[in-house]
Amino acid sequence: MTTDINLSINTLQKAYASGETSPEQLIKSLLVEAKSLTAVWIHLLTETEIAPYLANLKNMSPETHPLYGVPFAIKDNIDLAGIPTTAACAEFAYTPEKSAFVVEELIAAGAIPLGKTNLDQFATGLVGTRSPYGATPNSFNPKYISGGSSSGSAVATAKGIVSFALGTDTAGSGRVPACFNNLVGLKPSKGLLSTSGVVPACRSLDCVSIFALTADDANTVFQVAAKYDEDDRYARKNIAENIKPVVLNNKFTFAIPKAEQLAFFGCDSYERAFIQAVTALEKLGGTKVELDFTPLLDAAKLLYEGPWVAERYIATQDILEEQPEVMMDVTRTIISQGDKHSAVDTFYALYRLQSLKKLADKLIGQVDVLVTPTAGRHFTLDEIAQEPMLYNSQLGYYTNFMNLLDYTAIAVPTKFTSKGLPFGVTLFSDAFTDQKLLTYAKRIQDDAQLSLGATGWTLPKTTLSTESDAFIDVVVCG
Amino acid sequence: MTTDINLSINTLQKAYASGETSPEQLIKSLLVEAKSLTAVWIHLLTETEIAPYLANLKNMSPETHPLYGVPFAIKDNIDLAGIPTTAACAEFAYTPEKSAFVVEELIAAGAIPLGKTNLDQFATGLVGTRSPYGATPNSFNPKYISGGSSSGSAVATAKGIVSFALGTDTAGSGRVPACFNNLVGLKPSKGLLSTSGVVPACRSLDCVSIFALTADDANTVFQVAAKYDEDDRYARKNIAENIKPVVLNNKFTFAIPKAEQLAFFGCDSYERAFIQAVTALEKLGGTKVELDFTPLLDAAKLLYEGPWVAERYIATQDILEEQPEVMMDVTRTIISQGDKHSAVDTFYALYRLQSLKKLADKLIGQVDVLVTPTAGRHFTLDEIAQEPMLYNSQLGYYTNFMNLLDYTAIAVPTKFTSKGLPFGVTLFSDAFTDQKLLTYAKRIQDDAQLSLGATGWTLPKTTLSTESDAFIDVVVCG
Repeated sequence: MTTDINLSINTLQKAYASGETSPEQLIKSLLVEAKSLTAVWIHLLTETEIAPYLANLKNMSPETHPLYGVPFAIKDNIDLAGIPTTAACAEFAYTPEKSAFVVEELIAAGAIPLGKTNLDQFATGLVGTRSPYGATPNSFNPKYISGGSSSGSAVATAKGIVSFALGTDTAGSGRVPACFNNLVGLKPSKGLLSTSGVVPACRSLDCVSIFALTADDANTVFQVAAKYDEDDRYARKNIAENIKPVVLNNKFTFAIPKAEQLAFFGCDSYERAFIQAVTALEKLGGTKVELDFTPLLDAAKLLYEGPWVAERYIATQDILEEQPEVMMDVTRTIISQGDKHSAVDTFYALYRLQSLKKLADKLIGQVDVLVTPTAGRHFTLDEIAQEPMLYNSQLGYYTNFMNLLDYTAIAVPTKFTSKGLPFGVTLFSDAFTDQKLLTYAKRIQDDAQLSLGATGWTLPKTTLSTESDAFIDVVVCG
Repeated sequence: MTTDINLSINTLQKAYASGETSPEQLIKSLLVEAKSLTAVWIHLLTETEIAPYLANLKNMSPETHPLYGVPFAIKDNIDLAGIPTTAACAEFAYTPEKSAFVVEELIAAGAIPLGKTNLDQFATGLVGTRSPYGATPNSFNPKYISGGSSSGSAVATAKGIVSFALGTDTAGSGRVPACFNNLVGLKPSKGLLSTSGVVPACRSLDCVSIFALTADDANTVFQVAAKYDEDDRYARKNIAENIKPVVLNNKFTFAIPKAEQLAFFGCDSYERAFIQAVTALEKLGGTKVELDFTPLLDAAKLLYEGPWVAERYIATQDILEEQPEVMMDVTRTIISQGDKHSAVDTFYALYRLQSLKKLADKLIGQVDVLVTPTAGRHFTLDEIAQEPMLYNSQLGYYTNFMNLLDYTAIAVPTKFTSKGLPFGVTLFSDAFTDQKLLTYAKRIQDDAQLSLGATGWTLPKTTLSTESDAFIDVVVCG
């Protein structure tokens, strides 16, 4: 905890309204705290660099600008005007004149950027250790990994330096670090958050993701950020029922994988935590169904073994072909495989994916929401150093299939293990179900009453929750 | 003209109802006529082979079976149970136990298969000359090409041997032969007609197409054939407003390419015919807009130059790798390029396509319907023999982009040239606008009052047309 002020958005706005603090005061103290973090920032903004954003608040009001004075962090593969974008590769860096589309939307709503955060180089990894700017330690226990690739964004949020942060999530990079740092991690429907001004990993799969302390905060940020971008070739228009929070029936059905498809890679505490999360969901009104997740797990494998690595190759082609030595060994080893596949391989993989999607959609259609552990095991930095490839791939077991199959997902904390490390589940469903998933995530969070991130702050009560409780037996949606 | 009975579906049903003919009588005489055609059939069914289908009619009635006793032909890359499927390559042939999903639907509605028709080998070509079973002559003038690849299906329909025929259309194979034989050619929205039991050309792009004498007939067949197939990985569910005929406003807007983007490859008669077709559309209530078709034309080029030929390679891989000599030279030359592209090329092409789609969708959104010539020029068999590649690619100028961009299209005849050869336009719009396009096609056909195919039969008046005329100023849709 870095300040007495709970940075969850509603609470922070009350603190501004009451005069308890001001954006200027708050940001100043946050910057001081920010400097104490290890390997979180690639570029922490100076007071001078932040000044224009604070000055802009004079033309805004908290009533009309939902993110008025709200500090946030930006993964360093997303552009902030005037600050280098490195993607964790100094030799790749460029300084954009314009911020990424989503960053512009957030700033226009009053949000204040604090810095650009560390990541697994070129967003290739789920560990948070593959960066020349250092391995990012976990916010609860520095012997453990933060998870990646959006490592710095997750830890900055968990440590209470920002109210929320932007990550990217191609294969799990927004969910795994949310799990390991006790955060909500929204991997929105593909195409709802613009990727203009984002360094691609796999351009056809990339999503900008949101780390937040609460599901309500994730929703507030989502509503600001999810604007249609004419210039993003992969942008999709949102559907009416997915724009504002939805009210759902108290009773719902959820699917988990068959017992033999649950993998914890030897981690008993995560296994117990998942069983408890399932019990908690049942107490919340959920009816559990065990389904055969084979099509999802097969799609996950397809991402690792298939031709999509060619997209990473395309994204880094200049560096790879001209100065491969500047790339981290592990990153180069992975990405340089990208020119080994043929068009024939690619179409075979696309056909296979289409078949799996057909089967997976049948699962999705059977229940209101699907639930898995977000990760099967939490690793230490030492473990990852010893087995950098195998353990990384284990971290993607529940996450890799999501964008390939065009699903929406949210990671939500449910429990601390006996070692005091966080565990959480991922809820997922079809594209354009962001609001439905945010509602379920909110219920889980309201029920679990865990403190926020690694801050010790308590979960604020929100009006929204009280209001919707009155409705949920009446209005059925989704 | 092969019989006194106009085979357009409504007329034929009246002939059955009045006792003027019976399915048995009619089929028998059609089979005799069918034998006189040159290079149309790869397998014409015997009376014995047809007998079971006729026998099944005893359990059906014209009231409940919309295709009761309606004769149809099947392109020989689509399975008919018990009859070899060759794709115009004898060495590739196999005899399926089960008919293709769409064929089953048609037969279940009372349709009677007459035979399997000739095609450009492996559906690779737009000419109708690339077949070891012979070049299919045009139904109006045997010196001219029939167009392809669905050459036999088009000519069988135009010659009045069948009421309708199935083709396939990956890059124009259902539209170009419709144009050259004075037929309606519907290239439905991707995924509405199952491709189960169809030899793939480009699996991710293939459509089963419909050749018919009238837009009403195309609609009747479409409604029977467009059933969702659980087992087709590329199947999509139709939307409610695209299932039954729609009523449209009398006034509409249509887009044609800018003058400099219209290509007739030296064919003045087609150029004049297109100008007349545009004038006719304006008289029908259409407001013309000239738009920049660059994104569409660029997408068309992408199909020819891009990695999608790898899909044709996959479809014929066993033959290509084990006995390449059995393939026609021209086909082998094209398809063997399919293993030259890389995964990197493929993703670059997919990104480019996504950008073009974004631009093209803006054009589509500006008007009710887009209109081009179906083909820019009609070639003789001799001309194609001299320039088999260049002229084939010219035939795809207005057709190649359609499936890549996920659009729906219908070719409709508008005019005969001074040489007595048919010309027609293609109407196209977004996916799931089949009914809208069928309605416009019907209006054009009602207005043009051309005889049907090469039969000399007149266009029947349909109740539907009269009914909807009463509505069109009132109900606005689409």
